[in-house]
Amino acid sequence: MARKQGSHSDITGPKVQAAAVRLIAQHGYAAVSMRQIAAEVGVQAGALYNYTPDKQSLLFDLMRDHLVSLLSAWQSEQKPSDAIARLEHFTRFHIRFHLSRADQVFVAYMELRNLTAENFSIIEDLRRDYEDALEAILRAGITEGVFATQDTRVATRALIAMLTGLSNWYRTDGALETERIEAIYLDLVRKAVSG
Amino acid sequence: MARKQGSHSDITGPKVQAAAVRLIAQHGYAAVSMRQIAAEVGVQAGALYNYTPDKQSLLFDLMRDHLVSLLSAWQSEQKPSDAIARLEHFTRFHIRFHLSRADQVFVAYMELRNLTAENFSIIEDLRRDYEDALEAILRAGITEGVFATQDTRVATRALIAMLTGLSNWYRTDGALETERIEAIYLDLVRKAVSG
Repeated sequence: MARKQGSHSDITGPKVQAAAVRLIAQHGYAAVSMRQIAAEVGVQAGALYNYTPDKQSLLFDLMRDHLVSLLSAWQSEQKPSDAIARLEHFTRFHIRFHLSRADQVFVAYMELRNLTAENFSIIEDLRRDYEDALEAILRAGITEGVFATQDTRVATRALIAMLTGLSNWYRTDGALETERIEAIYLDLVRKAVSG
Repeated sequence: MARKQGSHSDITGPKVQAAAVRLIAQHGYAAVSMRQIAAEVGVQAGALYNYTPDKQSLLFDLMRDHLVSLLSAWQSEQKPSDAIARLEHFTRFHIRFHLSRADQVFVAYMELRNLTAENFSIIEDLRRDYEDALEAILRAGITEGVFATQDTRVATRALIAMLTGLSNWYRTDGALETERIEAIYLDLVRKAVSG
């Protein structure tokens, strides 16, 4: 019985998250009910509570899973050794990861205000872990003498905002191919922190 | 009587907009009712309809007024003549204008999805007018031989996303003074498009 429930959750979980992300990105967290999410998945509202205790937990899980996936994808990447190549690698990785997840990116940014203080602080820590990855590259480049910037933490946030902003307007079926977009952003990023 | 109504609207209008921006930034457009906005202003829901025909018009007015203020503030600025000074001027202007309007910036970005197609296209045109201002500076710098970038439109959007992203985390009562923040961003922006 326990195993059956487990299997059921394993199948339903991704569907629930996908439906929740889609609905929250479209209408906003406060306007979406558990009933609507259940209807979108095609289950009874009661069945949703087997998967998640409440809407706050669901939102938190979405945002945490998004950031945990981001961090684990980044950790599993083979990293080049010099700072310029590492910055280029980070830029390409960030663009590709985020472009394929426009709804998650939108929800992760927009719905921070709807997290409880405790959940917010966990999400902030994960976000900081990701910022740390880029900041370490900037610091390494300064040590190598190839980068210069007045404040590595502010530069990190500025570059991440620049790269993530691409999700606001660029769609992969647009006129500019992803390769070309990456090249344009790479040039901006590299020069922004150049020594 | 007409004059009295006019005066009434003149007084109520800014209060309605301020209340609507605050509530929409906090809860999202779909979750905020005209009744809640009226309560926040301290008027009957019926009185709100003297000011605006419906919630869609109110949202559209908020976003249009935000962009019209931005454009008119920019147009009334004294512009330096060379491209590097103009880019520096634009950067400082953009940061100061947006930092003092965190809720409007949040709503202007987040609630695009809730505009009707017709309203969306008007807002997009205004946003493009503002992008044009920065793109003209980048083009001038390329002509002067001081800037280089692979695509002036993409670079424009990238720089605007970088600068606007500051509103996501920086509060003027933070540890870093605005002057210092501006200096850090100026360095990033100037170098990002340097020739």
